[in-house]
Amino acid sequence: MTPREIPPTIEWRRGAVRLLDQRALPARVRFVNCRDTDSLCRAIQTLAIRGAPALGVAGAYGVALAAHTLPTKRQVRAAAARVARARPTAVNLARGVEQALAAFERDGPSGALAEAERLVALDIMCNRAIGAHGAGLVPVNGVVVTHCHTGALACPGYGTALGVIRAAAEEGRVPRVMVDETRPLLQGARLTMWELEQLGINCTLIPDAAAASLLARDEVDVAIVGADRIAANGDVANKIGTYPLALAARHHGVPFYVAAPTSTIDLDAESGAGIVIEERPPEEVTHAGGVEIAPADASARNPAFDVTPARLVTAVITEVGIARPPFRRSLASHVRRAGVSPRC
Amino acid sequence: MTPREIPPTIEWRRGAVRLLDQRALPARVRFVNCRDTDSLCRAIQTLAIRGAPALGVAGAYGVALAAHTLPTKRQVRAAAARVARARPTAVNLARGVEQALAAFERDGPSGALAEAERLVALDIMCNRAIGAHGAGLVPVNGVVVTHCHTGALACPGYGTALGVIRAAAEEGRVPRVMVDETRPLLQGARLTMWELEQLGINCTLIPDAAAASLLARDEVDVAIVGADRIAANGDVANKIGTYPLALAARHHGVPFYVAAPTSTIDLDAESGAGIVIEERPPEEVTHAGGVEIAPADASARNPAFDVTPARLVTAVITEVGIARPPFRRSLASHVRRAGVSPRC
Repeated sequence: MTPREIPPTIEWRRGAVRLLDQRALPARVRFVNCRDTDSLCRAIQTLAIRGAPALGVAGAYGVALAAHTLPTKRQVRAAAARVARARPTAVNLARGVEQALAAFERDGPSGALAEAERLVALDIMCNRAIGAHGAGLVPVNGVVVTHCHTGALACPGYGTALGVIRAAAEEGRVPRVMVDETRPLLQGARLTMWELEQLGINCTLIPDAAAASLLARDEVDVAIVGADRIAANGDVANKIGTYPLALAARHHGVPFYVAAPTSTIDLDAESGAGIVIEERPPEEVTHAGGVEIAPADASARNPAFDVTPARLVTAVITEVGIARPPFRRSLASHVRRAGVSPRC
Repeated sequence: MTPREIPPTIEWRRGAVRLLDQRALPARVRFVNCRDTDSLCRAIQTLAIRGAPALGVAGAYGVALAAHTLPTKRQVRAAAARVARARPTAVNLARGVEQALAAFERDGPSGALAEAERLVALDIMCNRAIGAHGAGLVPVNGVVVTHCHTGALACPGYGTALGVIRAAAEEGRVPRVMVDETRPLLQGARLTMWELEQLGINCTLIPDAAAASLLARDEVDVAIVGADRIAANGDVANKIGTYPLALAARHHGVPFYVAAPTSTIDLDAESGAGIVIEERPPEEVTHAGGVEIAPADASARNPAFDVTPARLVTAVITEVGIARPPFRRSLASHVRRAGVSPRC
């Protein structure tokens, strides 16, 4: 495979916000050009862009767009509020809007734009630090299994778990990657496979339920996944399917690493028991790739995340370094140490 | 849900073999009428009928069809050989042809047809015995998780793991069933969901990787699956995804039962280590429901089965009864006791 460039997930181009349209991937590389906040809101709502860090940046660019296209401060504030509400459960989106709006109030339109670009730079810096700390955990010529998508499309410049794999490849460790397809939304099949191919990293798609038998057959050296939220005790909430992967890895003595910025660590959550698991629409399970796969009236359960207990986690890789058990102490220390540098 | 009848998977109708077309399910209930062995071969090759026991019966009906439509013994034998080769790896298909051909040589066309109908009756009897032995293992109002498809469409009249669930329902135990969708071919989503709905049994579709977190949340009482082959020591080869389900069930103290006729027990295989796992075409993984879900040039692994080690199996339910550990002794005893009655 020859490496090809991954286009920027989101960028400011001639007074507009250009998004890499993730709905069209992997079949087509297509862009959405948003010239006003309404079209950006539509793009966010229809998942042209997704992933928590990318949404944070999209929120900030949304404010910059409003500031450059609307004549009054009042209109800018109203448009910013609409962008923040485009996906109500996405905390990062509202936070990105808030940060860019504060910069706008202080320094005007160019302040908002500078803030959006600072957020992108911060995310890339943070992801590169995670990659640098984690790369050495990937054995030379080793096989990594990963779940879901944690790459540059979600984290606007580099990636978390995929960032570690990418950094290992850049160090010449020549990793091979087994990619869980990640039903129901198939982020592994659609996005992770595409990104790894663009990067020229050897990758193989597997059904989620095939990972355990590859582990049993000694065909995997290490598991690396991302996280949506990490509790104070080290319990990890991540995409559904992470927990059975962790169980199988432990059963076969394969290390299980979680790569995530310290901003994912929630010291207010004592353990995973307190994390509410979002149940998403059953249609995502009764369909695959847009096609109905079950009887028309079938009922389905669709928990979006699961919780991997801390005892199955070998270490958490953050921008600060590698946090090992006991996690209550090491994670709190990472959060403290991250606090003194620009927070990811 | 109101129970509806499941039409026969395969039957003899006015000199032809009528198949319930499993390619059209669950969207449509459609039949294929085979008036000659060529059309039956095509139906077998294109998976209008599948599942080991159903293929055995299809082979026998194929000989009956040849015997009723072709003028000479030589032509009947040649047509029978073509049916036997329609799917070269399906042992049951060739065995069904062989049994019906022996009956044809002995008793002519009506002998072949009688043999096909005897095989159907035997399979139903065997499945019903499995169901009767296993039904009591399903707690009243209990939640069962199952994997892949083991129902009447594959075992021409009743089912193995699904037969146990069905028998539990007939005994008034009111089971609720969590159905793994079973990627890549989605037999759980397409066929198990359809059959359970026809039977009026409460069923819910889940992504394969969601079973572990339902087990972790205490939402499942028992796991019941089928088997493709059981080794002398109790190791079970079954559809990919069975092993991670067994791991999660054990981890959460939930019993894991395997329901299969004694004909599935292979006393010549010492353990699962000797069972060769078929790797199927990667296209099954890069597609879902007929739609491409990965980059066009993506490579994929597609092991069709995995091996669940005997220590994760609570018991094996056969037509003889319930075999518990130590399996080497109990399974051999089941095979011996089955040998004295008509072998399933």
